Amino acid sequence: METETRALLEAWRGRLGRELDAAIGFWARHSHDLEHGGFFSCLGRDGSVYDDVKYVWLQGRQREARALLEAVVRWVREDPTELGRPLLAGATPHEPLAVPMMLLCLAEQLGEGAGGPLAELEGWCARRLLHHLQRDGSAVLENVSPDGQELPGCLGRQQNPGHAIEAGWFLLRFAQRQGDAALAAQAIEGFMVRPFQAGWDPEHGGLFAFQDADGLCPTQLEWNMKLWWPHAEAMVAFLMAYAHSREPALLRLFDQVAAYAFQRAASTCPAPCTCARRCWRSCCGSPSGSRSSRAANKGSAAKTRLRPGVSPPAFPGQEKRGRSRWELEPPPVPPGLRGRAC
Amino acid sequence: METETRALLEAWRGRLGRELDAAIGFWARHSHDLEHGGFFSCLGRDGSVYDDVKYVWLQGRQREARALLEAVVRWVREDPTELGRPLLAGATPHEPLAVPMMLLCLAEQLGEGAGGPLAELEGWCARRLLHHLQRDGSAVLENVSPDGQELPGCLGRQQNPGHAIEAGWFLLRFAQRQGDAALAAQAIEGFMVRPFQAGWDPEHGGLFAFQDADGLCPTQLEWNMKLWWPHAEAMVAFLMAYAHSREPALLRLFDQVAAYAFQRAASTCPAPCTCARRCWRSCCGSPSGSRSSRAANKGSAAKTRLRPGVSPPAFPGQEKRGRSRWELEPPPVPPGLRGRAC
Repeated sequence: METETRALLEAWRGRLGRELDAAIGFWARHSHDLEHGGFFSCLGRDGSVYDDVKYVWLQGRQREARALLEAVVRWVREDPTELGRPLLAGATPHEPLAVPMMLLCLAEQLGEGAGGPLAELEGWCARRLLHHLQRDGSAVLENVSPDGQELPGCLGRQQNPGHAIEAGWFLLRFAQRQGDAALAAQAIEGFMVRPFQAGWDPEHGGLFAFQDADGLCPTQLEWNMKLWWPHAEAMVAFLMAYAHSREPALLRLFDQVAAYAFQRAASTCPAPCTCARRCWRSCCGSPSGSRSSRAANKGSAAKTRLRPGVSPPAFPGQEKRGRSRWELEPPPVPPGLRGRAC
Repeated sequence: METETRALLEAWRGRLGRELDAAIGFWARHSHDLEHGGFFSCLGRDGSVYDDVKYVWLQGRQREARALLEAVVRWVREDPTELGRPLLAGATPHEPLAVPMMLLCLAEQLGEGAGGPLAELEGWCARRLLHHLQRDGSAVLENVSPDGQELPGCLGRQQNPGHAIEAGWFLLRFAQRQGDAALAAQAIEGFMVRPFQAGWDPEHGGLFAFQDADGLCPTQLEWNMKLWWPHAEAMVAFLMAYAHSREPALLRLFDQVAAYAFQRAASTCPAPCTCARRCWRSCCGSPSGSRSSRAANKGSAAKTRLRPGVSPPAFPGQEKRGRSRWELEPPPVPPGLRGRAC
């Protein structure tokens, strides 16, 4: 390993280790409801509970997890109406990427590796995930028809770069368990790198929350918000892809996301911010910051840039062959879209 | 009427008349599906259809409207599960402001004034609306319990300034039909002016999409977005309130919203904007603007300030009595919230 690459990795490892310890410590101290059991999700920055709703996704308990998994599999593969949300007349049947993605993750967490009792389920999820890689592998679409075809309209063109990258991470781990090098490459190229290249804001940086595969305006109001969790997931994905392939350009993409994220992270924000969850927009000096009329975010909005002491190295491979296929460049604007309305 | 007030009103009437003619003309030319009937909702700025979904709220047809109203009343007052969305186990029963608000509007459109066949329904809606005026009339809460009490948690604290102001407009018209001066004053003060004062961004201007009644961070991702339609509705509401009361401060609030809105309206945007619906953030030079990585919004983001030729007059009443009770001032930060997390 090159010296500079090692230094970069070690600097980030120290930084990320401290951040993870702080984050886990915070949740361990404040989230547990010692009176009634379960875990609070809605914590302020000082640990105070501002809503006592206990969202399901934080309540996983190991002894109930397998029973829950069986129910989830039934809902996904047999009868989704058990969830109390039947398909309405006139609604387009569609398969969201999120479903096989999260089920693959769940199966991995509860399974026992390749050939274990959940192997069939994992394979099913992986095949379903690949249905979403459309347009000759150039686009991950969030919704496809039940038989894996592109759907018309906004629903069919919808993209969620964060979901695609997260799915790539789960698919890469599945491919590694299967020893399937081609699938691993597809997970990295199709689900991580291309969605990242298309989903990164070339003007302000950061991953868009939603996009439209034809460059039209997404219907989601929050489409151009830069939410923290897709960036955390992209950091995991690119580190994992680098560990798998040792391709320096992937480490560089990790560094790009991590530098962007920690410039805006709550833990580095100098303001007495009232928002623990998504303060990137409201108090941390992002170009699109805005403030609540009532919140007391009156602290400095200085753009604190916290980077590890190591500058991104010039990756040797890139010097030799020019632009790496994984380096970021603004995606081309599809022909005919200039001036076209959405 | 004061000369300056008349000049202000006439300048806006000319401007708004042209805008309305242009908007209605656009929809009349492009929205109608001449092949299959019905109306397209998803139109680009050049009139092209980018999704052929026909949303229900644009499909109102007079001859079917009364039958539809009967179904809606049944869903609202008798059995909402007919809509295919039964209350899930564990979900908090709550009554959204939007339901009696829109039903009151519908009843007014289809009714025949006070004492007509829908009078009982209108009265029911008005009483339900008043359930949402909580905290001694100082806050309109979006969700209350079925018996009209404040609910705990984020759901109960949720506020939607645009909904409150729109509800005030419908309630004012109802009060006028009833000849109920006290209710009219309550509609203006409680549903329009106070929610506007609390919901206007004192830093960047514009109405927030959502707020939390205790000043915590709303759970809606889009809470601090400035959407166009609440501003259009606030313009209607304050003009209507001014026409009712002739209180100059209400005309001033209209002028404040109208000036803000037309500074950012799509029709005045110099950029070749690809987004016809909500381009305030993406192409019109708002401080929080961002652009799609693919959309061709490469035009000028200059802050064009288009105002009628008349400056806001110094309203005589205000000079005499100092600050009007309806003038905008930043709402106080509730004690204990400084530095408190959300």
